[in-house]
Amino acid sequence: MNEPLKFPTSPFAPETGEQAEYLDDQALRQLCEAEHPADLAAQFAELDLDRAADIFSRLTPDCCADVLVHMDYDDQREIAARLSDGVLAKVIAKMSSDDRVDLIQSMPDERGETLLHLLAKKEREDILRLSSYEEDTAGAIMTSEYATLSPDLTVRQAIDKLRLEAPDKETIYYAYVIDEHRRILGLVSLRKLIMARPGAKVEDIMRRDPVCANVHDDQEEVARQMAKYDVLAMPVTNGNDALVGIITFDDVHDVIEEEATEDFHRMGSISPGTGTEDLVDIGLKDASPWLLIQKRLPWLLALVFMNIFSGAGIAYYEDTIQATVALVFFLPLLIGSGGNAGAQSATLMVRALAIGDVMMKDWFRLVGKEVGIALFIGACMGVAVSFIGIFRGGVDVAVIVALAMVCVVLFGSLLGLSLPFLLTRLNLDPATASAPLVTSIADIGGVVIYFGIATWYLGSYAAI
Amino acid sequence: MNEPLKFPTSPFAPETGEQAEYLDDQALRQLCEAEHPADLAAQFAELDLDRAADIFSRLTPDCCADVLVHMDYDDQREIAARLSDGVLAKVIAKMSSDDRVDLIQSMPDERGETLLHLLAKKEREDILRLSSYEEDTAGAIMTSEYATLSPDLTVRQAIDKLRLEAPDKETIYYAYVIDEHRRILGLVSLRKLIMARPGAKVEDIMRRDPVCANVHDDQEEVARQMAKYDVLAMPVTNGNDALVGIITFDDVHDVIEEEATEDFHRMGSISPGTGTEDLVDIGLKDASPWLLIQKRLPWLLALVFMNIFSGAGIAYYEDTIQATVALVFFLPLLIGSGGNAGAQSATLMVRALAIGDVMMKDWFRLVGKEVGIALFIGACMGVAVSFIGIFRGGVDVAVIVALAMVCVVLFGSLLGLSLPFLLTRLNLDPATASAPLVTSIADIGGVVIYFGIATWYLGSYAAI
Repeated sequence: MNEPLKFPTSPFAPETGEQAEYLDDQALRQLCEAEHPADLAAQFAELDLDRAADIFSRLTPDCCADVLVHMDYDDQREIAARLSDGVLAKVIAKMSSDDRVDLIQSMPDERGETLLHLLAKKEREDILRLSSYEEDTAGAIMTSEYATLSPDLTVRQAIDKLRLEAPDKETIYYAYVIDEHRRILGLVSLRKLIMARPGAKVEDIMRRDPVCANVHDDQEEVARQMAKYDVLAMPVTNGNDALVGIITFDDVHDVIEEEATEDFHRMGSISPGTGTEDLVDIGLKDASPWLLIQKRLPWLLALVFMNIFSGAGIAYYEDTIQATVALVFFLPLLIGSGGNAGAQSATLMVRALAIGDVMMKDWFRLVGKEVGIALFIGACMGVAVSFIGIFRGGVDVAVIVALAMVCVVLFGSLLGLSLPFLLTRLNLDPATASAPLVTSIADIGGVVIYFGIATWYLGSYAAI
Repeated sequence: MNEPLKFPTSPFAPETGEQAEYLDDQALRQLCEAEHPADLAAQFAELDLDRAADIFSRLTPDCCADVLVHMDYDDQREIAARLSDGVLAKVIAKMSSDDRVDLIQSMPDERGETLLHLLAKKEREDILRLSSYEEDTAGAIMTSEYATLSPDLTVRQAIDKLRLEAPDKETIYYAYVIDEHRRILGLVSLRKLIMARPGAKVEDIMRRDPVCANVHDDQEEVARQMAKYDVLAMPVTNGNDALVGIITFDDVHDVIEEEATEDFHRMGSISPGTGTEDLVDIGLKDASPWLLIQKRLPWLLALVFMNIFSGAGIAYYEDTIQATVALVFFLPLLIGSGGNAGAQSATLMVRALAIGDVMMKDWFRLVGKEVGIALFIGACMGVAVSFIGIFRGGVDVAVIVALAMVCVVLFGSLLGLSLPFLLTRLNLDPATASAPLVTSIADIGGVVIYFGIATWYLGSYAAI
């Protein structure tokens, strides 16, 4: 059989006994070589979990490891739970150090301990060390499979060393030049090594003082630095400036996306998660209803509480309302517009702060610009709405509504602009200034401004 | 002077004549070698533009090119506008092909043409070819500086070829094996070449059928594929399957972040941009008030229009309101809660659709789950709010408010869940289901549900 195996859509899909038997170990091995692990992972995800685990246990540990890292956290966990300790330990030994830490941390404690004891001492210690870093730090996402060189090697020796070590390293495209205390002296890329004279010394061609991260640095900050410097990998040092790991470019994609998702959720007033029960990791599709309720209910109840103040505002102006019920007609319109303008400002500001486009010091300048923008927008909306005002409630109502619109939009915009700054100053995440939160606060302001203006205007000028 | 130059915080910062003079050409050259271009770019950004351009014109074209790509689009454009054609042409010749296309496209047409004529024929043609691809496609972000190999080379010959070509290539870590029609036969990584026997043939060690993108593919889709397969670079082919460019990992960071920003803005009901006047490229800080007004006003006005329906709903129930004004007290609370629950659902769904966690086919299953969640959440909120109802308006109002709360939260949640799907089906961006849009529609539903329940209940059971 020289032809490569051909599979219709999914090689594992046909569940009929005969076909399934057909995939003998030989065929499976060929499959692993022919298909990208990411594609295999996608096909496994379609399978019944028991069947997936069954096929998994017949793959080589290498192939298992490659496929497993490309699966969702949830599927990973489920498959791992169905593999025997012996098989799983062999797979874990083949996984890269950052990925296996994540996997072991997702398991029940006892199983994790059993597996640790099945691993070689060196691997066990590596896992324990990496597990000790707090979530979302550089230490927690780094891998310990990095390549090092000593400064006195020649280029030829360095390339030979990298060649020998390549199978065990996450990348050999960057090698870190370290001294006897593992302090980083410099960085050499494989590109530079290939281009250099074979007899040259590593220390003469290395780039000195490469950008480093500390194990305790926030993963988002590290990702941002890596994107800024366009580096393939970032070395991570501990408190003694000793090299302890690297973070590679593929982790950066995940971090950028994860952090964006977190900010998204915060902006939608969904509580951020911590630990293993994190919505960002699990994904919406696999999240249990109970987890979603836990994420959603707290803010909704908090916002109900805030909305009571809007109600209280209305109660305060009960006389005005009873005198001119037509005013209530415009209530959703006005408080809605303030909330919408505020949600826009907050969205712009939260994202600009998150990607580093705007800093704390820019607040004052931005307020000036925002006042101008909000007055213009408010005036346009005021004119638009005053036509309806005349039609529905006469000139007085039109004037009140138009005036209120300008004030409400200005209030909402400045609120949306400033709240993220205020939260940052209080060391909270600016994205906590969610659209619903801004809308709810703008509602309170909107009620007071609207009926305040109405009471004042009707009392002073009108004769309804 | 053997010591490397030491600069306090910014080497260019001291604007006093003497200090500024001190940075002679020799010092500048050393500075370029010592500092990372990204850091130099950050320092330039702090300078007065004329002064920055002045220093720029004294740097080597290589250094200029490196620094320029690390600047904001806006600063890039401003500096370029201040450099003479001769200097700028030399800098552009040194830039990588994807970056210089972006720069030239940001210039006035006449200047771009002048510069094109100052470049070598090969570069000019390359720029014109890359410029021809539509924005946000793989063609528009790819670079043409990729490494190729023919299949019959030995590993030794291949490494020699890469060594020679390295200075002109964006990356030599991946080399593409092509036939005489430039069709991709396979992919060899430098890692694999280094590890292979020097006499082995490239075609025997290459990975066949690597994942490719087409020039017309959406950049977001390509970025997602690259993140999925964890590749350093993705080859891009044209309609004839011929290799025409590669996209490298650093572009992926930018695309992921840019697309997240776009979705963020859409979710905040800020109109997406196209062309050079794109808010995502310019950034909030540098955006003109007029641009921001253009981005914000259209949706706000559209939402005003929608809010009129809420008002019309209220007008319809005017009798009910006049009979029991206490009901108005709970209006912001109820319509706010529906909107907030809807904003949550929409946020979760838009993000899950964007990152591929959820597909169109999942809608039905998700609706089932959402009904359960929304009923539970609505019941909790209904109980909470009914206490206030008793206090403010008696048992009848409490029952009405609690009932309405459950219905309003259910309505908002299902709306928020379904609208992104509906928009996707209509080939619109799901993120158009912005929090303000969902809130505004939920408001209309909220008014009708609330006063509908009130009218029915008061008419049937109560005797107020």
